[in-house]
Amino acid sequence: MALAVKGPIHFGPFVVTSQVSKKPPPKNTQPPDPLKTTNQSSGNQVFHITPLSFALVNLKPILPGHVLVSPRRVVPRVSDLTPSETTDLFLTVRRVGRMVERVYGASSLNIAVQDGVEAGQSVPHVHAHIIPRKKADLDARGGTDAVYDMLDGEEGDLGKQYRQRRTRFPAVDNEERRPRSMEDMEAEARMLAKEMEGEEVD
Amino acid sequence: MALAVKGPIHFGPFVVTSQVSKKPPPKNTQPPDPLKTTNQSSGNQVFHITPLSFALVNLKPILPGHVLVSPRRVVPRVSDLTPSETTDLFLTVRRVGRMVERVYGASSLNIAVQDGVEAGQSVPHVHAHIIPRKKADLDARGGTDAVYDMLDGEEGDLGKQYRQRRTRFPAVDNEERRPRSMEDMEAEARMLAKEMEGEEVD
Repeated sequence: MALAVKGPIHFGPFVVTSQVSKKPPPKNTQPPDPLKTTNQSSGNQVFHITPLSFALVNLKPILPGHVLVSPRRVVPRVSDLTPSETTDLFLTVRRVGRMVERVYGASSLNIAVQDGVEAGQSVPHVHAHIIPRKKADLDARGGTDAVYDMLDGEEGDLGKQYRQRRTRFPAVDNEERRPRSMEDMEAEARMLAKEMEGEEVD
Repeated sequence: MALAVKGPIHFGPFVVTSQVSKKPPPKNTQPPDPLKTTNQSSGNQVFHITPLSFALVNLKPILPGHVLVSPRRVVPRVSDLTPSETTDLFLTVRRVGRMVERVYGASSLNIAVQDGVEAGQSVPHVHAHIIPRKKADLDARGGTDAVYDMLDGEEGDLGKQYRQRRTRFPAVDNEERRPRSMEDMEAEARMLAKEMEGEEVD
């Protein structure tokens, strides 16, 4: 998270960071306040940044700790990524996954990429869903695999203009999941940014 | 595919390659027949081998070209992988995904890892599902997202003893999908092994 970010980070067509100055910070300023640094670099929804990838919280998480990891470069398909971007993306998925599993007290993870429109992708920017799972967490909603129907409903919450379809189980989506406030998302992003600092690099 | 394989490859507790001699081939033999080499190195279900990963065909593919990519080392969780294994696995996913999308005339891919029992994993060996998708390919079965219900049914076909649950839509699973013969799987693995040879390394 100490990485300098030049300009806003985009998730598809959306800016998901706070306004970041395009100028480098002035030299000879006082040493940064760690909390403030975390806050600034994590921006609004983004809580982790690597040279080629970033991780962001969700507007309507399916389960607590449901986050996304994307390449910094806005490209729609995994095959559009360079080998370096692919490597960085999935090492970030692994590290972020380990963190959310720990922080949210989970014991498993669903990791899913809808790679292209025909696979259900709604925001044309590669993104891996990471969803922490625990025993019986979805029993009331249909069992372990209900996560997929919910994932299908979730896809596109950050990009409704790209949504071309509806979940087959709108009741699950409509009754139980509401968009969060930006304040909620920012608070979670700040918390997760701090938790990432405690993760081993590998 | 020129990679030497010392001993059988395991997918969880299952051997998924033909019996491979533990001795290196004798020197000064005649030059290998390319077809035969492909056949031998691809084994039964395995059609691609890298230093740390392998790709195999499925007993009951959800859609044509549905394949799996696993690390050579039998470990249950993504977080158990070394950084090198993680990198090799997902570069292999990207390369194999590109190939099956081309060979099966698809335009998108579902990529999914059920990382742990609570995420629906039934074979305790990391594996990424790659499922080629095309427009309207599942309209008759419930739409784009029916793939997930079918994925849930599929999980564990190679390891029924690990299955602890049933799909919520057994009709889909029971009526439309039957295990294939080993001959079918071997023929597909041979075909895909040849197709992989035509893929650019990156």
